[in-house]
Amino acid sequence: MRFFRSASTVLLCAALAPLAVADEGMWMPQQVPQLAERLKALGFEGDPAQFADLTGFPMGAVVSLGGCTASFVSDEGLIVTNHHCVTGALQYNSTPERNLLVDGFLAKTRAEELPIGPGSRVFVTTAVTDVTAEIRGKLPPKIADAALDRLLERRIKTRVAACEAGGGKRCVVAPFFGGKSYYEIAQMEIRDVRLVYAPAEGIGNFGGETDNWRWPRHTGDWSFYRAYVAPDGSPATFAATNVPYKPKHRLRVSPKGASPGEVIFVAGYPGRTQRHMTFEEVREVVNWQLPRSIRLAKEQIALLEELAKQDKALAIKAAGRLQGLNNGLTNQSGVLEGMTRGGALAQKEKLQQELQAWIAADPARTAKYGGALDTLAKMQAEAEKTRERNAWLGGLAMSSTYLSAANSLYRLSLERGKKDDLDRDEGYQQRDWVRLKEAQERMQRTIDPRLDRVLFRWALLHVAELPADQRIAPIDAAAGLTPGMAKADAEKAIDGWLDKMYAGTKMADKDFRLSLFEKPAKEVAATQDTFLSLAVAMHPMLEAQREAGRARSGAYARVRPVYMEALIEKAGGLVAPDANSTLRVTYGVVKGVDGKDGIWLKPQTTLKGIEQKHTGEGEFDAPDTQLKAIQALRAGKATPYLDPKLGDVPIDFLSTVDTTGGNSGSPTLNAKGELVGLLFDGTYDSVASNYLYEPVGTRSIHVDSRYLLWTMVEVDGASHLVEEMNR
Amino acid sequence: MRFFRSASTVLLCAALAPLAVADEGMWMPQQVPQLAERLKALGFEGDPAQFADLTGFPMGAVVSLGGCTASFVSDEGLIVTNHHCVTGALQYNSTPERNLLVDGFLAKTRAEELPIGPGSRVFVTTAVTDVTAEIRGKLPPKIADAALDRLLERRIKTRVAACEAGGGKRCVVAPFFGGKSYYEIAQMEIRDVRLVYAPAEGIGNFGGETDNWRWPRHTGDWSFYRAYVAPDGSPATFAATNVPYKPKHRLRVSPKGASPGEVIFVAGYPGRTQRHMTFEEVREVVNWQLPRSIRLAKEQIALLEELAKQDKALAIKAAGRLQGLNNGLTNQSGVLEGMTRGGALAQKEKLQQELQAWIAADPARTAKYGGALDTLAKMQAEAEKTRERNAWLGGLAMSSTYLSAANSLYRLSLERGKKDDLDRDEGYQQRDWVRLKEAQERMQRTIDPRLDRVLFRWALLHVAELPADQRIAPIDAAAGLTPGMAKADAEKAIDGWLDKMYAGTKMADKDFRLSLFEKPAKEVAATQDTFLSLAVAMHPMLEAQREAGRARSGAYARVRPVYMEALIEKAGGLVAPDANSTLRVTYGVVKGVDGKDGIWLKPQTTLKGIEQKHTGEGEFDAPDTQLKAIQALRAGKATPYLDPKLGDVPIDFLSTVDTTGGNSGSPTLNAKGELVGLLFDGTYDSVASNYLYEPVGTRSIHVDSRYLLWTMVEVDGASHLVEEMNR
Repeated sequence: MRFFRSASTVLLCAALAPLAVADEGMWMPQQVPQLAERLKALGFEGDPAQFADLTGFPMGAVVSLGGCTASFVSDEGLIVTNHHCVTGALQYNSTPERNLLVDGFLAKTRAEELPIGPGSRVFVTTAVTDVTAEIRGKLPPKIADAALDRLLERRIKTRVAACEAGGGKRCVVAPFFGGKSYYEIAQMEIRDVRLVYAPAEGIGNFGGETDNWRWPRHTGDWSFYRAYVAPDGSPATFAATNVPYKPKHRLRVSPKGASPGEVIFVAGYPGRTQRHMTFEEVREVVNWQLPRSIRLAKEQIALLEELAKQDKALAIKAAGRLQGLNNGLTNQSGVLEGMTRGGALAQKEKLQQELQAWIAADPARTAKYGGALDTLAKMQAEAEKTRERNAWLGGLAMSSTYLSAANSLYRLSLERGKKDDLDRDEGYQQRDWVRLKEAQERMQRTIDPRLDRVLFRWALLHVAELPADQRIAPIDAAAGLTPGMAKADAEKAIDGWLDKMYAGTKMADKDFRLSLFEKPAKEVAATQDTFLSLAVAMHPMLEAQREAGRARSGAYARVRPVYMEALIEKAGGLVAPDANSTLRVTYGVVKGVDGKDGIWLKPQTTLKGIEQKHTGEGEFDAPDTQLKAIQALRAGKATPYLDPKLGDVPIDFLSTVDTTGGNSGSPTLNAKGELVGLLFDGTYDSVASNYLYEPVGTRSIHVDSRYLLWTMVEVDGASHLVEEMNR
Repeated sequence: MRFFRSASTVLLCAALAPLAVADEGMWMPQQVPQLAERLKALGFEGDPAQFADLTGFPMGAVVSLGGCTASFVSDEGLIVTNHHCVTGALQYNSTPERNLLVDGFLAKTRAEELPIGPGSRVFVTTAVTDVTAEIRGKLPPKIADAALDRLLERRIKTRVAACEAGGGKRCVVAPFFGGKSYYEIAQMEIRDVRLVYAPAEGIGNFGGETDNWRWPRHTGDWSFYRAYVAPDGSPATFAATNVPYKPKHRLRVSPKGASPGEVIFVAGYPGRTQRHMTFEEVREVVNWQLPRSIRLAKEQIALLEELAKQDKALAIKAAGRLQGLNNGLTNQSGVLEGMTRGGALAQKEKLQQELQAWIAADPARTAKYGGALDTLAKMQAEAEKTRERNAWLGGLAMSSTYLSAANSLYRLSLERGKKDDLDRDEGYQQRDWVRLKEAQERMQRTIDPRLDRVLFRWALLHVAELPADQRIAPIDAAAGLTPGMAKADAEKAIDGWLDKMYAGTKMADKDFRLSLFEKPAKEVAATQDTFLSLAVAMHPMLEAQREAGRARSGAYARVRPVYMEALIEKAGGLVAPDANSTLRVTYGVVKGVDGKDGIWLKPQTTLKGIEQKHTGEGEFDAPDTQLKAIQALRAGKATPYLDPKLGDVPIDFLSTVDTTGGNSGSPTLNAKGELVGLLFDGTYDSVASNYLYEPVGTRSIHVDSRYLLWTMVEVDGASHLVEEMNR
């Protein structure tokens, strides 16, 4: 009920009443100096300009893991991030006999540190350059939509190639404000990353799915990596002779954590928000995408849980996917709940009507912005006509690792056949080949015929039910499906076809997959591997879908910047762009929040909650070592990590910082730039803020640095790492 | 975990540090003036002496319903109490077609007010007299235990007879501090009580068993009776010519409710607390009584729920018993949890050890108090030897209304046969005959052969399993049970026997039961009614049990006052006696409480919580009329019952007042003596305080008078009653 009460004020009048607003905004670092007045009002006494300097302190210490954020916390390349960001690394190093996912891991010496597998990366942002003029300048006057998209892509690729020339760097050119602006982000790419320390599941994932997105929370969601480079300091793949990377900047971990009312900052790589979507776009998300996605996630979770029960090794292979599905399910349910209750969708519509009225009220504005919203609405309506089929075209490959590998390998062979690297599609250029190869290697952790077949079969059963005007013809032809077929018949046809598909493929064989990397398309197509043959058969349809996507992207590239300019002008100029996996800064204060009627959710939790929640099994199974350490504390053992006001060691805290997925692992900094915690989650009531920011109840969840340090010293025997961080 | 942290300080050092203690104490009204300093510290500016005057304001307005408390709120006998205190009255007036339990009831005129059935009473306390000297004075020096108990009982009966001479009064002589003191309580007894208004179940029992004992709570737990008397003002049974009773004092209902931090008082009839039990006695409660009682309640609930599903009429008959079982189950589980977690039992043991050490430290004390604790411990150990059988001897009649009616009727016939009324057992004297008759009449609401047989069979199956040295011989003989019998055989024997028992009885026939009232014991025994014959067969064993009980009571009457004197002397003199269903006063403040780690439970709830909890079915089914009224409020409709700070109508509030079962329906008074709410529950974390007061987390739950008034005016169309209360 309390959602979105005054969101309109906040979203659109931010510049008019800067001090009244909550802490919305995943700001580009260069925008932070403009927030000086707001920050001062919150009690911040430092210089906001320090956040704009990406190669200075503290921003230089903040890195991306590709999907998560992390930060350097020692001069010898020690990196702290979330436990849930290292699941893949733990999985990669686990066996049925030695399950690091459950037991955790601690390297007592450098020699014991574990390589985390191919494709692991640490990205250090070194420069952000405005390249809008290069990308969008001097466009041909009457270029067609698809051609426009190709042209923009070619300019981006040209720019990226220039940026990466010389090696050791990874560059992206990312659109901001729907393509109104483009920034080139250059990142140093560290390729030898090793696992140093992860607590047991009973600490790092205490509360599991039950507590995920929830508060009060008692999760010790941290883990440590170390970045290694060649002896000369240049990025290199794993080698025993590599040495720890010496970062230019590193954060200091505060033994004092964060306290209620304190101003904090989070620097990180938030993945994606959609706050600047149009009403019609949000409506489709709420009415179709989310309900569909929730339904499908539940179906897959049920299948995988059944499978995981049957086989321990399969359980390990499925763990990452299951965790992802569960996490997404909770998130999407939260967004759906937030958007449907409390009238958020109506609020979004109202905001758009206000924008339209504002445009219509002034002839100059009408000339500049008029029609943009109508065009976006029409495009949305058009896209919805074939959404079921289009969703399943992508969904098929997402369900089957075999098919996605085959698609990727066949497409690579086609793209490699092109002579000019700039002609190759994004993701299949020369710069991507190593990454693609590593992905095929990493895939070996999870690929499994039983697992694959269960989910592929599930997806095919859905594909079989597509309406007659939205069929996936290559699948129909291969599996013998027809529209309106009885379910039992479809199952029979699919099962028979899958028998042949899995009997006739070597897609689970890593060497086979890697052997295809250099082969020309014709040879790949001629392997007679069933999944490769399917990829070849599906290729024209996927290509047509991509071409249609290009036309749509080109059209959006014309109209969305106009809409965004209107939004920004109406807001007075200072608007945070939607998150796009680039480095951002958000600020806020440590603060509790109203729960259900009659309940105040305090801003901090303590060890007491672990004692209360611990059941000794399942998701609430604190390790004995921790329970003993708590007993010792209760018996009077002194620790510098006790919060005097709470009379206990703090665990997690809530804050008003504005974050989203991708921010996981982000350092939480106090006004001095000390690491006082790690961001690891948002509350369930906050997730709808990805579509429409809700200023009253939105909260992020952090683990307090005192819990981190207390556990390292008192529970996990990781004092040597604490000493390293203190050096 | 937070239980009992500083209970020892509180319990034993109350007199030393009066301002540091929480609000423990269900005080006798005459003790309240001694609390002046504590009350002043809480901000109370009135005269505590007013609470000592039972015939003045406000105490004169507070009445007992026998099991619940209530209060006069108009000059015309209007009485407010809890909804859950009128379940019997609603049941009595319900039919399968018109279920007042579900729909509620409102009399638009006096003529529509409904008699609530035989046995309904309102008791107005008119005098409390210390009669310790009369009861315990000049005891014969060497009297045996059972004889001592008889003598005390005879003195009590003599005193009661004198008190009640003249009629229209009901008197009890109640022991305080384990028989250290005796007080005679005289009560005017109003016998014509009518139902005026009860809200729908979706308000009066909103949250049902799910929310029972829980916070946050959103229950509108109120209902209204009216007291009627003969035209001459004397108490009389129901008659159309009766007129509303005009109380000497009545409370005024405040339209301002209660606010956080405010001092409040609760005057009422708390039933029973056991805070002065010895450690050994509490240990048996925790280790045996509560686990047994919880187990048996669960078994009975399952049987009754199954039965209620099958038949609507049976469901109504079983409703009261089911509600009682569920309520008891939650309460007992809470006590057990509170006493086992947090080391309460150990705390109790420690307190007793401190008392023993204090006694041993001084020869004078040793002479006075030495040995009392040992004696109590030995008596407890002795009683535990046959506890299983003794519990089932009573439990059998509790399971079967047929058997309890037969027992009661046969025993009455025996007692009536005695010539001197003072020789008759307590409860079977002349003064009890009308009440006993009304109980037999009231029994007709719930008596049912199917219901009865299910529970009686269940109890018999347990009796069949009693160990060989604790058998109930008359049952063994009648049903053909033997120790160690296979379960299937026992079931067969019991089922066969019950076929005969229910075929050969007229115990469900009210007229038959009432016809036995005047008959001598021989005639009653000769009716050949199967249940009466069973009662006759069991009588010698029950009589022997009662005789053993007398001996134990006599022994306790010698030793327990010694133990209590030691306790009181150690505490410095001012100790509240355990609750014993007599009028008490407790004070406290409106205050929230810590919930689980990370949660603060606010002191107030609002209509918002009803919107959040409402599901439209089951226990969370707010009436449409209420939902519409909330909508109107949200749309801006003005109401004087809005809390300006909350911006909503308050529903329930928490306070630190010290209450227990029997306090239900108690008026909650502010410093001016205005009714600001009704006490109706305690929190789950508080119930263990019945055995050992926990000063940090103990909270009572009240409904705010603003919710009462708002609902009467805006939802239930009861403005005429509000007007009457305002006159």
